[in-house]
Amino acid sequence: MQENKKKKITIKDIAREAGVSPAAVSLILNKKPCRITEEKKQLVREVARRENYIVNLAAKSLATRKSEMLALILPDIENTFFSSLAKQIENRCRQEGYSLIIASSDDRRENDKKFLRVLEARGVDGIFLILSNELLGNRQELKKELSLLTMPYIMIDRTFSGTDCGRVSFDHEQGGYLATKYLLEQGHTKIGCVYRDDKAGSGKNRLDGYLRALREFDIPVLEKYLAKGDYRMESGYLAAKTLLETDATAAFVCNDMMTLGFLRRLHEEHKQVPRDYSIVSYDDSLQNYLFGIELTTIVQDIKVLAKEACQLMFGRLRKESAEKKEVILPPKLKVRNSVWKWGL
Amino acid sequence: MQENKKKKITIKDIAREAGVSPAAVSLILNKKPCRITEEKKQLVREVARRENYIVNLAAKSLATRKSEMLALILPDIENTFFSSLAKQIENRCRQEGYSLIIASSDDRRENDKKFLRVLEARGVDGIFLILSNELLGNRQELKKELSLLTMPYIMIDRTFSGTDCGRVSFDHEQGGYLATKYLLEQGHTKIGCVYRDDKAGSGKNRLDGYLRALREFDIPVLEKYLAKGDYRMESGYLAAKTLLETDATAAFVCNDMMTLGFLRRLHEEHKQVPRDYSIVSYDDSLQNYLFGIELTTIVQDIKVLAKEACQLMFGRLRKESAEKKEVILPPKLKVRNSVWKWGL
Repeated sequence: MQENKKKKITIKDIAREAGVSPAAVSLILNKKPCRITEEKKQLVREVARRENYIVNLAAKSLATRKSEMLALILPDIENTFFSSLAKQIENRCRQEGYSLIIASSDDRRENDKKFLRVLEARGVDGIFLILSNELLGNRQELKKELSLLTMPYIMIDRTFSGTDCGRVSFDHEQGGYLATKYLLEQGHTKIGCVYRDDKAGSGKNRLDGYLRALREFDIPVLEKYLAKGDYRMESGYLAAKTLLETDATAAFVCNDMMTLGFLRRLHEEHKQVPRDYSIVSYDDSLQNYLFGIELTTIVQDIKVLAKEACQLMFGRLRKESAEKKEVILPPKLKVRNSVWKWGL
Repeated sequence: MQENKKKKITIKDIAREAGVSPAAVSLILNKKPCRITEEKKQLVREVARRENYIVNLAAKSLATRKSEMLALILPDIENTFFSSLAKQIENRCRQEGYSLIIASSDDRRENDKKFLRVLEARGVDGIFLILSNELLGNRQELKKELSLLTMPYIMIDRTFSGTDCGRVSFDHEQGGYLATKYLLEQGHTKIGCVYRDDKAGSGKNRLDGYLRALREFDIPVLEKYLAKGDYRMESGYLAAKTLLETDATAAFVCNDMMTLGFLRRLHEEHKQVPRDYSIVSYDDSLQNYLFGIELTTIVQDIKVLAKEACQLMFGRLRKESAEKKEVILPPKLKVRNSVWKWGL
């Protein structure tokens, strides 16, 4: 209570006490060059520190809602898709004069909620939000949380509608469709799919794309060709074990980490890609790591994702009458040599 | 100015206006369960929002210096060493009840300085600091910046002495020594070194370790075996080109990204590891990605690094009389099968 009643110190107070001009105080505290003796500079800093001047600066910035700081909440900082995306967003924020801080939720709902609250309390100007997967499960509760936010926020990659925010994501169904269609066009008809079993996330959508392509080519869907995974390497390894016991000649593997596990199993069985097994993957993050295997893959352009997310954010911050609320980006097929063409 | 003169609203004011108890207001605004009708809850939130109560909360938290938020400044969020370290630190902070926010400096001095200032202004309780390499070049200026900080900070990985902070790092000289000694013990005498040419960073220290091992085994140092890199893949690829023109039978490559480039070149030349060429690497981050090559490598235990950094931080936050100021961790040699043993 004592703290609150204390009169707030201003630049003028510091200037008076240190015997320099207010302008000089500002230069010194903002560490800009100025022609003041080192002694005087030191004195100004001492006065400012004694009076907790920096703290007041922050409070003022909060009060005026001009922090020039944006935040990004992401599920896992170790996942290269998210860390690359973070880097791209950060670069764009920097160009616009914003600092970006990053918070990693460990893919857990309670952390998403905690960070939303903490970051709002810190007065960040806006939040880029890549939801934890757990959260996607209980949307009603999340919608309530989000409706309480007082700053703009943009949902990236994992989105849902029904709240007032910008949304940017890739069309996962189209990605699954393109991958599978390519395998069909190369003459494969016995095609496995290693997918993630979620109710409404990218996993379901990519599987839906696989199913659509098969339907289009009048190929029946067989249970034995469907292998569940969880986007982690180990699950790709296990899926390969299962699929290699069937007569499938190719697989659409729904992310690169699972493909890595799949390839490890193929290597152990002395099977080569594409001579013995054809693969289309998703993400295009492995090209630096694999020697001799050039993966045909679905590519999601992270730069474009970052660009669109930032445009939505900056538009909202400038209070432009935002025409666009939702951007859905098309993934692309990148053909390399991991698919065997029949009849050659 | 208008803003500043406004009387600050308190929980009591909101309670009075909404017709509930102050305790209930606190529970509602902190989103804790309480037996109040949804209508009343909504009213409390509306009053709080209208009066910008959240903003004041933040300001109060700043004023009392109890934010329960720590920050980590790191050079590159895409580098897996740093992102893994960030995840470890974050887990430990969470266990202690702190939120961690992360800022990525893009390895540039100006961003380090900017973040230090911004984060201090936000009243974070402490800063974990992995310096940009550029900054290591001009220590005097940096020391000045750091001396102005009003909260504890811990230098991690890239450290220097002469400021009042905790420091945790690995012994890079010892790592270079262990790697090279192992190659010498396996009978190699013509050993290349792909190193980063910095004046006082990990690059110089790892090279120093290489030189010490050669001296110990009375092996002369030959210029032709020294290949400069920059810790990036491309430079490892180019270094391999150079070293493959010499009679070297082995190389100590000072980080995994350069090893990846080195391996790519070996693959192109149809040379196998270890049959045709022996390698000891540094970091142990590639094991999931390489099939058929098991890299012998220097391992830096990131978990231990995170643990020590957090212990130093929490000790300082609790104002324990910190006995330890600097922790230097020993790296370890992990032997796999990427080194050919002569005479077998």
